Amino acid sequence: MSELTTPQREFRAAMANLSAAVSVITTDGPHGRAGLTVSAACAVTDAPPTMLVCVNRSSRSHDILVANGRACVNVLGADHEALATRFAGAVPPAERFSEGAWDVDTDGVPVLRGALASVVGRIVDERAQGSHSVLFVEVDKVTTEEDSGALVYFQRRFHNL
Amino acid sequence: MSELTTPQREFRAAMANLSAAVSVITTDGPHGRAGLTVSAACAVTDAPPTMLVCVNRSSRSHDILVANGRACVNVLGADHEALATRFAGAVPPAERFSEGAWDVDTDGVPVLRGALASVVGRIVDERAQGSHSVLFVEVDKVTTEEDSGALVYFQRRFHNL
Repeated sequence: MSELTTPQREFRAAMANLSAAVSVITTDGPHGRAGLTVSAACAVTDAPPTMLVCVNRSSRSHDILVANGRACVNVLGADHEALATRFAGAVPPAERFSEGAWDVDTDGVPVLRGALASVVGRIVDERAQGSHSVLFVEVDKVTTEEDSGALVYFQRRFHNL
Repeated sequence: MSELTTPQREFRAAMANLSAAVSVITTDGPHGRAGLTVSAACAVTDAPPTMLVCVNRSSRSHDILVANGRACVNVLGADHEALATRFAGAVPPAERFSEGAWDVDTDGVPVLRGALASVVGRIVDERAQGSHSVLFVEVDKVTTEEDSGALVYFQRRFHNL
């Protein structure tokens, strides 16, 4: 976006103060493999277990995620900052998976070994809101790492917790 | 909920590893005043500036928020842990606002003085998902505090950042 309005600038400044976990959302399937870093993700409900993730609709990764209909939300740990930067655009989409220890789910979806949590599921709904879509992921399978610190994004930089 | 299934327990364990900002969402209007602590909130888009917040539909605060149609998301700072506990249910709804420095928006919505960020807006949509609703708040007005640490919820306890 070339120019921001005052409300947009003010909103971005406020949201820089909303600390957030950093995750890489991944997919693979008939429409190809993709992955991107997100910080707008949360648990919606455990009945049935469901997460949501906000993704910019203008990204190619968004279209691949929705077309495949299956995704993994990999919650990054304290030692995953390089991976976060890589999947945030520092590296072209085709080269992103050449770093990191990636397993695959039964459907081929990349799952990060050593992630604080990995949540694999079906994208059951997509709700457009302005520039972004909210993807609802109904969870089939989770993996949790017990003894890791968290990677947190706050005031426009990474922190360890 | 009296008994959790294995997938629910596993999902909760995974989501305990998803660090999150802590906020108090507040409302006031024809249907009364209410406020509750939430950790599932994120920025959706800045075109137009919009946040979302996940709220349990069984809570009375949920019904008051939706009926009033106007809310403030108050992002808590490092020194707001007592307030977070208070609005998470340690104190009955009617007594919650007797602690904290509360200003009011032009529409009467309580705004926490000293919050890391306060975002006031209209609830433009509500999407039900299992036990919870995702409330979409289109933002009218924001306040940002520059020099505060964050209150973060991770592995079922509060941390300062």
